[in-house]
Amino acid sequence: MPVPDPGILARKAAIAARLRAAVPDAVIDDPAETRAYECDALSAYRCPPLAVVLPATTEEVAAILRICHEERVPVVPRGAGTSLAGGSMPTADAVVIGLSRMNAVLETNYPDRYIRVQAGRTNLSISGAVDGDGFFYAPDPSSQLACAIGGNIGMNSGGAHCLKYGVTTNNLLGLRMVMMDGTVLDLGGPMGEAAGLDLLGVVCGSEGQLGIVTEASLRILPKPVGARPVLVGFSASETAGACVAAIIRAGIIPVAIEFMDRPCIQATEAFAHAGYPDCEALLIIEVEGTKPEIAEQLALIREIAERFDPVEFRESKSEDESRRIWLGRKSAFGAMGQINDYMCLDGTIPVSTLPKVLAGIAELSRQYGLGVANVFHAGDGNMHPLILYNANKPGDLELCEAFGADILRLCVEVGGCLTGEHGVGVEKRELMVAQFAPEDLEAQMRIKDAFDPFWLLNAAKVFPLASSAPRREGAHGKGQRNAA
Amino acid sequence: MPVPDPGILARKAAIAARLRAAVPDAVIDDPAETRAYECDALSAYRCPPLAVVLPATTEEVAAILRICHEERVPVVPRGAGTSLAGGSMPTADAVVIGLSRMNAVLETNYPDRYIRVQAGRTNLSISGAVDGDGFFYAPDPSSQLACAIGGNIGMNSGGAHCLKYGVTTNNLLGLRMVMMDGTVLDLGGPMGEAAGLDLLGVVCGSEGQLGIVTEASLRILPKPVGARPVLVGFSASETAGACVAAIIRAGIIPVAIEFMDRPCIQATEAFAHAGYPDCEALLIIEVEGTKPEIAEQLALIREIAERFDPVEFRESKSEDESRRIWLGRKSAFGAMGQINDYMCLDGTIPVSTLPKVLAGIAELSRQYGLGVANVFHAGDGNMHPLILYNANKPGDLELCEAFGADILRLCVEVGGCLTGEHGVGVEKRELMVAQFAPEDLEAQMRIKDAFDPFWLLNAAKVFPLASSAPRREGAHGKGQRNAA
Repeated sequence: MPVPDPGILARKAAIAARLRAAVPDAVIDDPAETRAYECDALSAYRCPPLAVVLPATTEEVAAILRICHEERVPVVPRGAGTSLAGGSMPTADAVVIGLSRMNAVLETNYPDRYIRVQAGRTNLSISGAVDGDGFFYAPDPSSQLACAIGGNIGMNSGGAHCLKYGVTTNNLLGLRMVMMDGTVLDLGGPMGEAAGLDLLGVVCGSEGQLGIVTEASLRILPKPVGARPVLVGFSASETAGACVAAIIRAGIIPVAIEFMDRPCIQATEAFAHAGYPDCEALLIIEVEGTKPEIAEQLALIREIAERFDPVEFRESKSEDESRRIWLGRKSAFGAMGQINDYMCLDGTIPVSTLPKVLAGIAELSRQYGLGVANVFHAGDGNMHPLILYNANKPGDLELCEAFGADILRLCVEVGGCLTGEHGVGVEKRELMVAQFAPEDLEAQMRIKDAFDPFWLLNAAKVFPLASSAPRREGAHGKGQRNAA
Repeated sequence: MPVPDPGILARKAAIAARLRAAVPDAVIDDPAETRAYECDALSAYRCPPLAVVLPATTEEVAAILRICHEERVPVVPRGAGTSLAGGSMPTADAVVIGLSRMNAVLETNYPDRYIRVQAGRTNLSISGAVDGDGFFYAPDPSSQLACAIGGNIGMNSGGAHCLKYGVTTNNLLGLRMVMMDGTVLDLGGPMGEAAGLDLLGVVCGSEGQLGIVTEASLRILPKPVGARPVLVGFSASETAGACVAAIIRAGIIPVAIEFMDRPCIQATEAFAHAGYPDCEALLIIEVEGTKPEIAEQLALIREIAERFDPVEFRESKSEDESRRIWLGRKSAFGAMGQINDYMCLDGTIPVSTLPKVLAGIAELSRQYGLGVANVFHAGDGNMHPLILYNANKPGDLELCEAFGADILRLCVEVGGCLTGEHGVGVEKRELMVAQFAPEDLEAQMRIKDAFDPFWLLNAAKVFPLASSAPRREGAHGKGQRNAA
């Protein structure tokens, strides 16, 4: 183990002391205790931070940021650390600001249909706070039991139900944010609108590049009267993809259209015994509403599905059957993890290109000699291909990463996007050049300059290193930054 | 008439010549011909521009902006000039870039439900292009026959149907924009999403401060199966407002909830003979869907409305009756114009505060001694009070403006916003301080700095003059700017 530089240790201690003076009992700098903050859910990347601070109020966040700004110390905001692209992973010179203690409901307003919460509150407990009154918060990422709304805002998260209800940005009305210099901004509000320049949209999905969100006003919706899933099996993945495109083309908007292919179906059946049919691909399509509304939508969906020669069309007839249909889908990631190492990708494509992209992924799978299992939100084109590999086989992970990059390039090629909801983070920063022209990236980086001129906030993420490094260094040159 | 300074005239001629060399046959600088571009639909403000250019392509827009950037000439983008807050009004030193020639449909894609058009295309003709195939573009400002989609994007326009379908920003998937220095950016795309920083949202509603939009990708939707309005009369405005809040609270989302009070009803009846009841206020509530869906929603609405003792509840029984119900609402502005001069305001409020705000406006009306007629999109809290005054009576316009400012301050006070869809423009720039703290305004202006460092694009609008002037002057000091 290398011996730490005494100068660096002294600076670390000095910064921790300043932080501790500002927010007593909220600073963690013992390496044994900071270990939990070394990585996010994407465990391939890991790094111990300089310190971790767990503030309780917006004012404390502002005080911490003012100190870090003065000291030119990078900062990494963290919700629950469930991100999958290294977005909340620290660097060695960075202070992690964890929002987990800020989890209060500040206000609920049913007539105007919003809830105001602190940013560390978990996604599911937002719905939990209004459930008894017949309301819910719509975006439902798979990690909703654990993930924080602040992280959802940073990643613009979606979920199975976003086909009908939209992603985070469509359900976010306002927020309070602290800029790197400690300035507190209020963007949007219960009305969701703003005169002048609307900064809410650019902050949503900005992966902690512009500030630290401490409070959010969110749209809440009345819970639907009823919901029912149908399970449709197909003899080929491409046919299932074409059926999804046909449903969307017909103007039907189910609440969810989930897709699984044979490798996923098999793994899931072995694990969860959901009673799925033996077929190449299946769709789970859920519709919502009153009984006549549900019946009408299902009739239309059946009519369209039958054009694609389904091997099975199973309408749920009971609560129990609905539960079993969803059980398989919800167990899919866990089931795959039981039998294989996998890397989960996250790209979006226009729904009409689903058959083409599925065929392209199959072809790449043959070229790379690595298997792929597909399980994803098909209705809104948010794909999550799982590349199967052997973590113990030298070179397999690198092959897997190259394969993944090719899949994401394919998504961009057909008019889609590098990321649906997991963010760019560390993982995909170098792929940004596949999506954006240099002038498009430059425009984005100028916004970063405007909010965080020293490039201290969640630095070295999102933007390709070759583009961002000169700005970070140039910016640091402006101040008297010591290496931490 | 003052004699023009020969130096200014020479500079004007030199700039016009450079523009003409770049885009032959597209430059208008004869004062007789530029007259049509001196104002927008808010005719209280008027100013002849330096020149008008009518480009035909994105490349021509870029060429014009490069010249203006080099010469440090301010630029005012213009769609159809239907704005109501002075947003497209020129200044004397500015070149107006009119987008009216750029009105082509570039692409329609039904499976992925989008259309790509040039920015000068009128709102209604976008729906017109897809109507035959059963689709439509949802946002429908009152000026939709004339207004350009580029202007809709600049103002984030709404319309009667935005309660269900959202405003422009909710239906905008991507755009091509030219920055002041001539750089062409592509933001978003058919998928509407972006990795990295999402600049689409901040451009939408930015009133031409960040760049000139030349193309837009827009969400198109399948036309509803059927629609039916119901007309409900009330014995007090506040009761009608409370009924709107109760409907929204119950989770019913009609397509439209329109409100009219007695002065409006009377003027409209005299003008359009729509057969409206004699009452203090009325709501027109429209629902959409299949016959059973419509029946179910109307039953719920009737149940809620009856709690508010309506003087009339009239369900349309035929196409003809529906047409007559809407006729009155659509004639309301014209009808008021027949009997009074009026100033049309535009503020948004949380729906739950409608009764309070209506009472507040009535109280202010007594204090100022000026009448008010209310006709507006009530469902989403976008108010359009019309202040009645006498344009020939000295001092009445000033009184009217003070009254209007008080109403907008009231909107902000209850948690609303200075503008719903007309923009800040020239009219409301000084009221921005009622909405935003200095640091919020500063953050917005930094974004402006990032996109347009010399503050040449639609300058002296949106931001309070006291805040923006030092930046404009500071910026101009950076270059060698000559007064035009």
